[in-house]
Amino acid sequence: MSEVLIVGSVAYDGLKTPYGSAERALGGAATYSSLAASLFAPVRMVGVVGDDFKKADLDMLKRHKINTDLVTHEKGKTFYWKGYYENDMALAHTVKLDLGVFERFNPHITGKARTVPFVFLAAIHPDLQMTVLKQMVKPKFVVLDTRDLWINITKPSLLKVLKKTDLAVVNDQEIRLLTGEMHLMKGARALQKMGPKIVIVKKGEHGAMLFGPGWTFLSPAVPLDYVVDPTGAGDTFAGAFIGYLARAGKVNEQLLKQAVIAGNLVASYTVQGFGTKSIAALNKAKLKKRSVDYHRFASIPKVKI
Amino acid sequence: MSEVLIVGSVAYDGLKTPYGSAERALGGAATYSSLAASLFAPVRMVGVVGDDFKKADLDMLKRHKINTDLVTHEKGKTFYWKGYYENDMALAHTVKLDLGVFERFNPHITGKARTVPFVFLAAIHPDLQMTVLKQMVKPKFVVLDTRDLWINITKPSLLKVLKKTDLAVVNDQEIRLLTGEMHLMKGARALQKMGPKIVIVKKGEHGAMLFGPGWTFLSPAVPLDYVVDPTGAGDTFAGAFIGYLARAGKVNEQLLKQAVIAGNLVASYTVQGFGTKSIAALNKAKLKKRSVDYHRFASIPKVKI
Repeated sequence: MSEVLIVGSVAYDGLKTPYGSAERALGGAATYSSLAASLFAPVRMVGVVGDDFKKADLDMLKRHKINTDLVTHEKGKTFYWKGYYENDMALAHTVKLDLGVFERFNPHITGKARTVPFVFLAAIHPDLQMTVLKQMVKPKFVVLDTRDLWINITKPSLLKVLKKTDLAVVNDQEIRLLTGEMHLMKGARALQKMGPKIVIVKKGEHGAMLFGPGWTFLSPAVPLDYVVDPTGAGDTFAGAFIGYLARAGKVNEQLLKQAVIAGNLVASYTVQGFGTKSIAALNKAKLKKRSVDYHRFASIPKVKI
Repeated sequence: MSEVLIVGSVAYDGLKTPYGSAERALGGAATYSSLAASLFAPVRMVGVVGDDFKKADLDMLKRHKINTDLVTHEKGKTFYWKGYYENDMALAHTVKLDLGVFERFNPHITGKARTVPFVFLAAIHPDLQMTVLKQMVKPKFVVLDTRDLWINITKPSLLKVLKKTDLAVVNDQEIRLLTGEMHLMKGARALQKMGPKIVIVKKGEHGAMLFGPGWTFLSPAVPLDYVVDPTGAGDTFAGAFIGYLARAGKVNEQLLKQAVIAGNLVASYTVQGFGTKSIAALNKAKLKKRSVDYHRFASIPKVKI
């Protein structure tokens, strides 16, 4: 069993979807992914919060055995995002964005945290991702997430940090922006030549596609009767994914495939509640039940040709 | 091993896609689906062609052991469709449509054909689908395809014939039109209450979803490096699907799942050539190879929670 180090935003979100709303719900990429990873392995979370950050939220993270020593408290406000979704829940509309203390986020990795073998760099500025990597001592497996914003405005920096990552998690729009390839399969192969030997393309309700060296794998998304808030689905996916690998302490084709499925399973809970509420309430028993249903849904029987 | 009876259009298509074009390529729903079904079981094809229908095309069908006794030859022209696809290959644009002899198509099922147990009603006018069903003697398993046109203009007729079918094949737009449900899962369950106990939702590049009584299954589409012409993919899928079941001579959860995979595998060939060319050239050896690749791609390993 290895540890996971996760770097990213910690935020309060104002959320509105066709199914309801929530004000100042605990969110942020590091929060979603740390909660997800903690289902499988010990987590060290790296982030920054303001003096409005609630003790109850910090306690909740600690209860999940997430080490928050490297979540620094600064004078000012915690990152705040306000947004809404219309019927197309794939598209988030931003109403308000207040970076607060996150604007001066400059992660310092100290002590034992520097030797954590599994590292997840959530979608922050690529220069910050690089700063983190430079402080780590021979990480075993580095997973990088990014977003269209960083591809558009900081591509040279992103290309540098991509060279130092083992796996990149992108969506179909991001892979097109990054590689210029319109075709997903070609885009994934182009991205594999830019650094990460392994690429995951998140396809939302259509699941996640994993591109290894010379092979491809698809794990369909869990079919859901209802989705109330898609915020954090991708972060949850990535967190559960790296947590699963860290628990095994190694990486191979079979484990990567299993980890993608674990990512889909855990993410299916996140979207059924507002903010981090349902992922925080998730436990192994519930997850096991959904995993059994999932296997009936997605297991491919042998076909007689 | 049972026989399959397939009723639908036989056509010549003028096709244009970003990858090339073909003039008067052999097509039509009955043609695609019969060729696909013939990979697994004996097929009786029901349709109509004009006096421009080439002997070489009829010979090709016969070489595939497709019984064409009920493909009638009428004075006039064979159904002609001319269309093109732009970059979004999911959307066909019609340039010209000449129904020809198909306008007076009135299928007569005679002799032994009336007792064929597996029946595929391709997407023709629901009154014609009903005419066929009324001539059949206790069919064991009836699969129905339809299209937005028939849902929009002949819904009452369609609802009647749906009551007499075992399985309906639809896409996500059609299921919304038919049931008024925006959510796929809810739409499928609503459709199951309208007659067919089993529903397949074709999701194009995202595969096919199978809804049985109380269970759901997804077979991802075969990942393809290139697609040159999507025409006939759905018909090929349905044909291979029912052919697979007919070969087994029975229907159960496991066989239905396998048949959906067979449908996806065979359809993946159709879209890699213009018209029926690649499906006509397909053989078991090629299909077996793709099936092995598919299992590496889509087999879901057990996840340790």
